[in-house]
Amino acid sequence: MFKKIGLLLFISIFLTSPLYADTGVVTTETVDMLWVMIGSVLVFFMHAGFALVESGFTRAKNSLNIITKNFLTISIGPIIFYLVGYGLMFGDSFNGLFGSNSFLLSGVDDMGFFVFQAMFVATCATIISGAVAERIKIGVYVLITLAMTSVIYPVVGHWIWSDGWLAELGFTDFAGSTVVHLTGAVGALTVVLFLGPRLGKYTNGKINVIPGHNIPMGALGVFILWLGWFGFNGGSTLAADTELVPMIVATTLMASAGGLLSTVLYSQLRFKQIDVSLALNGVLAGLVGVTAGTAEVSIPGAIAIGVVSGVILVEGITFIDRVLKIDDPVGATTVHGLSGIWGTLAVGLFSVESGLFYGHGLSQFLIQGLGVLAVVAWTMASVGAVTFVITRFTSIRVSEEEERIGLDISEHGSSAYQFNDTFSSKEAIQPTGAFELADRLNQLSESKAT
Amino acid sequence: MFKKIGLLLFISIFLTSPLYADTGVVTTETVDMLWVMIGSVLVFFMHAGFALVESGFTRAKNSLNIITKNFLTISIGPIIFYLVGYGLMFGDSFNGLFGSNSFLLSGVDDMGFFVFQAMFVATCATIISGAVAERIKIGVYVLITLAMTSVIYPVVGHWIWSDGWLAELGFTDFAGSTVVHLTGAVGALTVVLFLGPRLGKYTNGKINVIPGHNIPMGALGVFILWLGWFGFNGGSTLAADTELVPMIVATTLMASAGGLLSTVLYSQLRFKQIDVSLALNGVLAGLVGVTAGTAEVSIPGAIAIGVVSGVILVEGITFIDRVLKIDDPVGATTVHGLSGIWGTLAVGLFSVESGLFYGHGLSQFLIQGLGVLAVVAWTMASVGAVTFVITRFTSIRVSEEEERIGLDISEHGSSAYQFNDTFSSKEAIQPTGAFELADRLNQLSESKAT
Amino acid sequence: MFKKIGLLLFISIFLTSPLYADTGVVTTETVDMLWVMIGSVLVFFMHAGFALVESGFTRAKNSLNIITKNFLTISIGPIIFYLVGYGLMFGDSFNGLFGSNSFLLSGVDDMGFFVFQAMFVATCATIISGAVAERIKIGVYVLITLAMTSVIYPVVGHWIWSDGWLAELGFTDFAGSTVVHLTGAVGALTVVLFLGPRLGKYTNGKINVIPGHNIPMGALGVFILWLGWFGFNGGSTLAADTELVPMIVATTLMASAGGLLSTVLYSQLRFKQIDVSLALNGVLAGLVGVTAGTAEVSIPGAIAIGVVSGVILVEGITFIDRVLKIDDPVGATTVHGLSGIWGTLAVGLFSVESGLFYGHGLSQFLIQGLGVLAVVAWTMASVGAVTFVITRFTSIRVSEEEERIGLDISEHGSSAYQFNDTFSSKEAIQPTGAFELADRLNQLSESKAT
Repeated sequence: MFKKIGLLLFISIFLTSPLYADTGVVTTETVDMLWVMIGSVLVFFMHAGFALVESGFTRAKNSLNIITKNFLTISIGPIIFYLVGYGLMFGDSFNGLFGSNSFLLSGVDDMGFFVFQAMFVATCATIISGAVAERIKIGVYVLITLAMTSVIYPVVGHWIWSDGWLAELGFTDFAGSTVVHLTGAVGALTVVLFLGPRLGKYTNGKINVIPGHNIPMGALGVFILWLGWFGFNGGSTLAADTELVPMIVATTLMASAGGLLSTVLYSQLRFKQIDVSLALNGVLAGLVGVTAGTAEVSIPGAIAIGVVSGVILVEGITFIDRVLKIDDPVGATTVHGLSGIWGTLAVGLFSVESGLFYGHGLSQFLIQGLGVLAVVAWTMASVGAVTFVITRFTSIRVSEEEERIGLDISEHGSSAYQFNDTFSSKEAIQPTGAFELADRLNQLSESKAT
Repeated sequence: MFKKIGLLLFISIFLTSPLYADTGVVTTETVDMLWVMIGSVLVFFMHAGFALVESGFTRAKNSLNIITKNFLTISIGPIIFYLVGYGLMFGDSFNGLFGSNSFLLSGVDDMGFFVFQAMFVATCATIISGAVAERIKIGVYVLITLAMTSVIYPVVGHWIWSDGWLAELGFTDFAGSTVVHLTGAVGALTVVLFLGPRLGKYTNGKINVIPGHNIPMGALGVFILWLGWFGFNGGSTLAADTELVPMIVATTLMASAGGLLSTVLYSQLRFKQIDVSLALNGVLAGLVGVTAGTAEVSIPGAIAIGVVSGVILVEGITFIDRVLKIDDPVGATTVHGLSGIWGTLAVGLFSVESGLFYGHGLSQFLIQGLGVLAVVAWTMASVGAVTFVITRFTSIRVSEEEERIGLDISEHGSSAYQFNDTFSSKEAIQPTGAFELADRLNQLSESKAT
Repeated sequence: MFKKIGLLLFISIFLTSPLYADTGVVTTETVDMLWVMIGSVLVFFMHAGFALVESGFTRAKNSLNIITKNFLTISIGPIIFYLVGYGLMFGDSFNGLFGSNSFLLSGVDDMGFFVFQAMFVATCATIISGAVAERIKIGVYVLITLAMTSVIYPVVGHWIWSDGWLAELGFTDFAGSTVVHLTGAVGALTVVLFLGPRLGKYTNGKINVIPGHNIPMGALGVFILWLGWFGFNGGSTLAADTELVPMIVATTLMASAGGLLSTVLYSQLRFKQIDVSLALNGVLAGLVGVTAGTAEVSIPGAIAIGVVSGVILVEGITFIDRVLKIDDPVGATTVHGLSGIWGTLAVGLFSVESGLFYGHGLSQFLIQGLGVLAVVAWTMASVGAVTFVITRFTSIRVSEEEERIGLDISEHGSSAYQFNDTFSSKEAIQPTGAFELADRLNQLSESKAT
C-alpha cells in the first residue's frame, strides 16, 4: 500500500519535475516523432516514384513536361496545405463538413503531424498528373492542383480523418485507399473526360497502343513507390506502436506481393504472356487495395486483398481503355480508383475487428460503400466544376501541333534526352537527322527508278 | 537497504502495472522494433538495386524480362517464406538440421523479425536472377526461386542463424556473407552450369565482351544496394544497440570504400585504365566481404577486408570468364560467392573477439572454413537436383531464335525503350550508324551529280 | 521531503545500477543514435543524387567518367577523414584554427557522430566533381579530393562546428550552407578557373548551350538529393529532439518548395517558358539556402529564403555563364555558392533568435558576412595553391582529342550506353528503319558498282 502511493507519487514527480529531463529517459512522444518523420521522408520520396512511373510509361517527347508537373505538385501542395488545407482538414469541425480554423497552422504545435499530412496532400494531387499527361496545358494543371490541395482533398480528409460525418458513422480508411487514392483517381478521371484522348489513341474505331518510352525507369518508379508505401501505411499509425507497425509493414508487403503475382498469372492466362506494364501496376494495385485495412487485416486477408486487386487491375484497365475508350496513359483511374474502392470495401469484409468474414455482419461494409459514394460524388462535382470554369476562360489542352511535336519542345523548348553528342564515339548513341536521311534516300531511289 | 528493496519493488511494479503505459516511458522493445523496421525497408529497397544492376549491365533487349524476374522474386519470397520457409528456418530444431514448426507463423508473435527475415530470403534468391539473365525461361526461374525460398535458403539459415549444427560449432556469420550471399551465388553458379553461356559469348575460342546497355542505371543500382546494405548489416543487430549499430555502419562504409579503391587501383595497374563496371562491382565485393564480420572487426580490419575483396573481384571475374569460360553476365558468382567466402573466412582472421590476427588462434578460421564447405555442398547439391529434375520435363533455356530477338519481345511482346516517337522532334534519339550513312549518302549523291 | 530524497536516491541508483539495463527503459542516447544513423544513410544516398545530376546534366560521352568520380569521392572521403580530417576538424583546438588530435579516431567513442560527419565531408568534396566535369583528368580530381577531405574542409568545419574562432564569434551555420556548400562551391570555382571552359562552349564570342543528355535521370538525382537533405538538415540536430526535428523537416520542405516555385515563375517571366533544368536546380538552391538557418527560422521565413534563392539561381547562372563566361556545367557555383552565401546571411535576417527581422539588430548578419569572407578566402587560397602545384607537374586537363572523343572512351575504354543490341528487335531502340536504310544503301551502292 505504502509502496503503491510511493510509486504514484514517484511517477507524478518523475514525469513532471525538471529532474525528469536529466534522467535521460525517453518518452513515447519522441519515438512517435521519429517514426512519423521516417514515414514523412518515405512518403516524400514517393513523388520521385510518381515522376518516374508517369514519364517512363509515356513518350520521350513529353518527359520534361511530366516531370515538371510532379515537381510543381510536391512544391505547391505543402505550401497551400499550410495556408489553407490543413485548417480545412483538421481545424475545429463545422457540422462535420470541414475544419474552420488552424489556418497558417495558427495554434498548431505538432509540426511532425503537419509535415506527414503535407506529404499526403501532394500525393493525392499528383495522381492526376499521370492521367492527364501528354496533352494538358501546364498552367491548367497548376490551377487544378491548387483546387485539390486547398479544398477538395482537405474536405474529404476532414470527413474521414478528422471530426467529420463519415468518421462519426464509423467509416474506416486507415491510410487512405479512399481519402488519398480514390479522391485522386476520381479527380483524374474527371479532368480526363474534359480533355479527351491523346491524338492517335483512338483512330476511326481502331484502338492504338501508345507504348511508354522507358519502362526500366518506370519500374524503378514502382520500386520507389513501393518503398514509400511502407512509410505511407506504417507512418499512418502516427505512433511507434510495437505491435501495429510491424503488422502494417507485413500486410503491406503481402498485399503488394499478392497483387503482382495475381496480375502476372491472370495476364498469362488472359493474354498468354506476362505483360510487364500490367505486372508493375499490379504491385501498385495491391498497395492501394490494402491501404484502407492495413492495420486490421490478417496476413492471409492482406494476400487475398492483393490478389483481387490484381485481377481488378487487368480487367479495369482493359475495360476503361477498350470499352469506355477513356485514355488514361498510366491507368491511374484503375490503379488508384477501382483498387481504392475495392480496398475500402474490403475493410468491411476482411477487418478482424468489423469485417463480414470475421462474423461482424454487413454494417461496416455498407458504411464503407456509403463513404465511397460520397467521396466519388464530392470529388467529381468539385473537380468538374473547377475544370468547367477553367474551360470558360481558356482551352485546357495544348494545340494539336504542340501535341504532335511534344510538350517538351513546345512548352519548355528543350528535350529530355540528348544521346547524340557532338564528336560522339561510335559506341555512344548516334546522331540526329535520320528522318532527313530517309527522305533523301527516297529521292535517290526514285531518281534511280526513273 | 530499505531503498534497494523499494527500488526492486518499484521496478517490478513500474514495468508491469497498467500505470506503466500511462507514464509514457519507452522500452527497448519499441526502439528495437523501429530499427528493425528501418532495416527492413532498406533491405526491401535493395531489390530495386538488383533490378537496375542486372538490367543495366546486360542488353536492352532483355531488360523487361530481367526486371520482371526481380519483381517476381520479391513477391514470391515473402509469401513462400510465410508459408514454409520461416518454419524451416526458425522453428524448433530437428537435430540442428532444420526447423519443424511455426509454419504460417503459427505461434509467432514478433512480426518485425519475420518481415526483416522475409526481405532477406528474397535477397538471397534474387542473386540468381542476374547470373542466369538473357537466356533462362522465366517459368523455370520461378520454380528455382520457389525451391530457394521454401527450403534451400531456410535450411542454411537454420544451420547458422537458428539452433543449427553450425551455430552450435561457433560458426559466425553476422549478417550473411555465407547465409545470403554465398548461398545465392552457389545457386547461381549451379544453374548457370546447366544453362551454358549466352549465344555469341564464346565463339570458336574467342571470348567476346557483351557490354551492358545502361551503365548509369547500373551505377544507381549499386548506390541503392549500398544504401540498403546499411540496413542489411545494421538491422541484423535486431536491436537499437547504441554501441553496435554505429560501429556496424562504420565498418560497412569503410569496407565498401576499400573495395572500390582497391578495384580502381588494381584495374589501373592490371589494365592501365579504370574499368568502370569492375569499380562498381568493387563496392559490392567490399560489402559482401564485410557482411559476416561487420559487428566484430575494427575499422582498419574492415578496410583490409574490403581491399582484399576488390582484388579478389578483379581476378575472380577474369578467371571465371576467361579461364573457366563460365558466362555469368553480372559477375554474381565472384561478387557474392568468392567475396562471400573471403568475408566468412576473414572473421577467423580479423574478428577482435575470435580472430587469428587478434591472438585467438586458428580455430575460428577453421570453423568458418567448414561452414563454407557445408553450405557450398548443400546448395550445389540441392539446387543441382532441382534444376536437373526440371530439365527432365522441359528445356530450361529459351530457343536460339528467342534469345537472338531478345526475351522482351519473345516472352513479353514488348520492349523496354521506345525513344523514337511518332512525330518525334529532332532532339529525340536517332538511329545508329547515321553518320556513316550520311557520309555514304553524300558520296552517292555526289557521284550521281557527276 | 522524504520523498524528494527518495526520488533523488532512486534516480541515481536507477540510472547507474546494473538493474537499470534489465528494466529495459530507453535513454536519449539510444534514440539520438537512431536518428543520427537515419540521417547518415540519407546523407550517404545524396551521393547517388549527385552522380545522377552531374551525369544527367552533361553529355552521354562523359557519363562513366563522372560517375566514377562520384564513387571515388564517397570512398576516399570517409577513409581520409578517418585518418586525418576528423582530427583536424574535431580534435582539441589549436588557437581556434584547427584540431590537433583524435587522428585515426584515437580516443573517440561516438562512432555515430563520426559516421555522420564522414558522409558530410564527401558531400562537400563531390560538389567540385560536377563543375569540373567533361575535361578534368581523373587523377587530378583525386588529388584535389584528397586535399579537400584531409585539410581544406576539416579546417572550415573546425572554425564553425568545433571550438573554432568563428564559432567563438557566434557565427551560425546549423547544417552547412557555408561549411559544406560554400566551401565545395568555392573549391569548384577555383579549379574551374584553372581548367577553363569545355571545347565548343565559347566559340568566337558565341555562347553555346551544351545540353544535358538525360534530364529525367538528373531529375531523379534532384529528388534523391531532396530526400537526403531531410537527413542532412534533420540529422544535424545530432539528437532526436521532439520539437526541433519536425520543425527542421518542415522548414527544409518549405524552402525547397519556395525555391522551385520562384524559379518556375521567374523563368516564366524572364524567358516566357519554364526552363526545366533551372526549375530542378531551383529546388537545390532553396535547400542550400535554408541549410544554415533551418533550425531557427519560421515557416514563412523558410519560404522567403527559398523564394529568394530561386531568383538568385536564375540570375546567378545566367551571369556566370553569359557575362563572366565561366563554364560550370551543372551550375554548382551558383547553386551551392551564391545560395550558400545567401543562406548564411539570411540567418542574420530571418533567425527568430538573432535575426534583424525579429528585432535582434545587425550584429548576427555582420558576423555571418565575416564568416563567409573568411571561408571564401581560405578555400580559394588553399584550393588554388593545391591546383597550382599540380599544374607545375602535369596538365590538369585531358587532351583536346580525348575531350572530343569523350572521357568514357578515352579514359575508360567503354561507353555508358549500348542501346543497339546485336540481333535486336525492331521494337528495341534500334533505329526506326535504320536496318532498312542500311539494306537499301547496300543495294544502291551495289547497283552503282555494276
